[in-house]
Amino acid sequence: MAKTNQGNFFEDFRPGQILTHATPRTVTEGDRALYTALYPTRFALTSSDEFARACGLARSPLEDLAGFHVIFGKTVPDISLNAVANLGYAEGRFHRPVMPGDTLSATSEVIGLRQNSNGRTGVVWVRTTGTNQRGETVLDYVRWVMVRKRDPAAPAPEPVVPDLAPAVDAADLIVPHGLHFAGYDTAAAGSPHLWDDYERGERIDHVDGVTLEEAEHMLATRLWQNTAKVHFSTMARPDGRLIYGGHIISLARALSFNGLANAQWIAAINGGAHTAPCLAGDTVHAWSEVLDKAGTAEPTVGALRLRLVAVKNRSAAGFPLKGEDGRWAEGVVLDFDYWALMPRRA
Amino acid sequence: MAKTNQGNFFEDFRPGQILTHATPRTVTEGDRALYTALYPTRFALTSSDEFARACGLARSPLEDLAGFHVIFGKTVPDISLNAVANLGYAEGRFHRPVMPGDTLSATSEVIGLRQNSNGRTGVVWVRTTGTNQRGETVLDYVRWVMVRKRDPAAPAPEPVVPDLAPAVDAADLIVPHGLHFAGYDTAAAGSPHLWDDYERGERIDHVDGVTLEEAEHMLATRLWQNTAKVHFSTMARPDGRLIYGGHIISLARALSFNGLANAQWIAAINGGAHTAPCLAGDTVHAWSEVLDKAGTAEPTVGALRLRLVAVKNRSAAGFPLKGEDGRWAEGVVLDFDYWALMPRRA
Amino acid sequence: MAKTNQGNFFEDFRPGQILTHATPRTVTEGDRALYTALYPTRFALTSSDEFARACGLARSPLEDLAGFHVIFGKTVPDISLNAVANLGYAEGRFHRPVMPGDTLSATSEVIGLRQNSNGRTGVVWVRTTGTNQRGETVLDYVRWVMVRKRDPAAPAPEPVVPDLAPAVDAADLIVPHGLHFAGYDTAAAGSPHLWDDYERGERIDHVDGVTLEEAEHMLATRLWQNTAKVHFSTMARPDGRLIYGGHIISLARALSFNGLANAQWIAAINGGAHTAPCLAGDTVHAWSEVLDKAGTAEPTVGALRLRLVAVKNRSAAGFPLKGEDGRWAEGVVLDFDYWALMPRRA
Repeated sequence: MAKTNQGNFFEDFRPGQILTHATPRTVTEGDRALYTALYPTRFALTSSDEFARACGLARSPLEDLAGFHVIFGKTVPDISLNAVANLGYAEGRFHRPVMPGDTLSATSEVIGLRQNSNGRTGVVWVRTTGTNQRGETVLDYVRWVMVRKRDPAAPAPEPVVPDLAPAVDAADLIVPHGLHFAGYDTAAAGSPHLWDDYERGERIDHVDGVTLEEAEHMLATRLWQNTAKVHFSTMARPDGRLIYGGHIISLARALSFNGLANAQWIAAINGGAHTAPCLAGDTVHAWSEVLDKAGTAEPTVGALRLRLVAVKNRSAAGFPLKGEDGRWAEGVVLDFDYWALMPRRA
Repeated sequence: MAKTNQGNFFEDFRPGQILTHATPRTVTEGDRALYTALYPTRFALTSSDEFARACGLARSPLEDLAGFHVIFGKTVPDISLNAVANLGYAEGRFHRPVMPGDTLSATSEVIGLRQNSNGRTGVVWVRTTGTNQRGETVLDYVRWVMVRKRDPAAPAPEPVVPDLAPAVDAADLIVPHGLHFAGYDTAAAGSPHLWDDYERGERIDHVDGVTLEEAEHMLATRLWQNTAKVHFSTMARPDGRLIYGGHIISLARALSFNGLANAQWIAAINGGAHTAPCLAGDTVHAWSEVLDKAGTAEPTVGALRLRLVAVKNRSAAGFPLKGEDGRWAEGVVLDFDYWALMPRRA
Repeated sequence: MAKTNQGNFFEDFRPGQILTHATPRTVTEGDRALYTALYPTRFALTSSDEFARACGLARSPLEDLAGFHVIFGKTVPDISLNAVANLGYAEGRFHRPVMPGDTLSATSEVIGLRQNSNGRTGVVWVRTTGTNQRGETVLDYVRWVMVRKRDPAAPAPEPVVPDLAPAVDAADLIVPHGLHFAGYDTAAAGSPHLWDDYERGERIDHVDGVTLEEAEHMLATRLWQNTAKVHFSTMARPDGRLIYGGHIISLARALSFNGLANAQWIAAINGGAHTAPCLAGDTVHAWSEVLDKAGTAEPTVGALRLRLVAVKNRSAAGFPLKGEDGRWAEGVVLDFDYWALMPRRA
């Protein structure tokens, strides 16, 4: 019996199947320091214990996306080792912050399956849940991937396509327990612009750009224990190691500080598409659009629904997204839709 | 109203103005590990809790320069986003060690302004103070930068040029509370050469060299939350990303271990000039000269005033500094003047 | 008197000589995070505090090899600064786990000396012992290196060649205090294959490959405070910075997770040879062979003696090792022989 993990192929998945993913991981201040070194993040809530305490938390949580990447990484050996493409995300919610010292584990439930007409691949939908050492959910989300079949002749399963919400309903957003923005220090946070100052349809060019390096994306991807070989080996990828899509999400989110410095916490992921690959040497810029606004159960905390777009090797000025033909504009690499929590004026 | 930070231009500064810089930051053992990975440092006081306790401290502090970089990084969005050049440092003092868990914040006071004759730029002097979560000063220093005007037609302010000390007076050096070098372990520290063994005018070639990498200087510069775009984007800098000057200071200081292993703590920065830019691929060597010696209030602790010179793409043998024409010699990238604390013989 | 460290030359070593190495170092969660970022490791025991507690430890120890590298690094300035080649390892035993917060120090005893017939170099054998802040041994091992003579005319010492065991006897393997694998969670660990499932002579291709980067091997090597200049400077190594051999050991060990996920802890190093150098840009794959099996004093813990082979720029399929001429096969860079601890079936 082969002792190496061959990963699951399309015909290995069954609706309702529960996959318990390997390697629980205790996250620490070491992970935070690396996150800060890898991405130009400056959000005060995840930078300062003092700032976090002033906002009602016990201490500064790890970046929301750090938790996402750790959970995501665990699913790779079981879900996407034989994937052709990561197709989308939906219904992602951040239930509670991940604190240094927490140990994260992940399970996934197969919630959809549909073989492609070519007979060689199929789409698998999973709902992944990340939990901490107390068994509490820290986040859950749906993603769907195109996975190869082991045997093209294997029969197609009955298609099951989940009914996914186009966005998380504002009423379902979770404000982390204790979090408030009463007495919020805008000078420390780096911007006077609060929830009240943003309007639906407003677009922001985040101005700054970062050129991608092989060492950096590989350090990041390993940190999340995501070992998909396309990210690491020039023998597997002679035309260039493919950069983990999550690396681009975190980079774009960090760049968005310049214009959204008070978007302190991601509450939900509504959707996301990695629209083109990134390789080392590419330079990434980002822009955001305010898609929606909502209050939350905590009066000092508002929610902004944001589209975060990353582009490569071009400026984000002009807000490139799609061409008149409806296709992604040249250089667009990420279209990410999320809810962020931001202080409201008193 | 634009929500991105445009930074301050020359005409935005006023004498006496106080700038409160954004993003307080809790520093941790994660930062120490990264510092050790980024620079070839081996000073025992900042490497070992046990060694630090034997020297009277509660535990091992972070590297002196790590604190400096964190504080410096906070000032960039307000002081030097529109800077043309970082001109100098003076009157820097390290008041108390930064310990893991401390949260650092920074403010700056504008202490000088002088428009350049070209009318397009001016020099801004600021005194920056870094504080911890108890409001205690951890370090302060003066730096001056050449900053662009937004509008060349704006009137020149009345010139104010501060009177800066050529060096911190030895009598003003601060020995960290509790620090002593009684019972100092030279074997653990890596060198038998103590304060008594160094002479004014003595020069030391630190021998070792390090080649700079893009990933490394960007990881470092982000770790300090210094996001000046010239360091990160090949689109902004087609001829090569400019390496943060502080990266070279830390590299040279770490290289100086080989010859100054007992220079355990930087007490003051007297001055410093980044005399030429560094790019990835450059190889850096360093040499030091003993400029002065002094005792301190603690009898076991002496102070050495040191010139630390970094050079690129040449050996430091021969102690390159200036040519006969008074210009910086070929390859000199840093001329840094500081006081270090070192054990004295009983 | 020169204040820089010139290192020891062959004629500086004496049988029985004890060398106390510099720079004690407190290791932390920061080091763990960097280890995870540098190597694709996923062993649950060193990833999760919860998993480690279920295995009887107080918390998750640092990776076994992280302790090895820290200790090894300390010896470089005294043992191998003037080395031509690192020839071998033997009799390495891991006495107790290194926990975050531990401070590591190292001493070495010279146990053998033999001048080479060319009169310009000699072989030095040392037994190095790493200890923690309580003076407890964390690991010890023998290594031998070829060291240059300062003066080729210096007389040859009486040869002393130590009698080294070809492998650590299974009866001498140390199971960390408290460690057991009762109630072991194979799902969390990532593989159902336990000690009982492996057979002598079995070989495993670990499948995955990683391309080496300059920034990564330099970050790693500095993290261990190993500052041998061949690893860092293109001026010292115009044909390419030589990658620290230990970087390849850690990389291969991490790759071996895919096939040996339950080999949770290295108990001993029987031997090892760095058979060819690695440079940035090389892609490394690994394979393992089960050389032997043994029980331990703890009934739930078995020991596997494993050969771990790393190859560059070729697949590990076919298990390349030596050619018919007895020479190392093309691309073989590491032949490492160690004992690992693995759960047994109840």
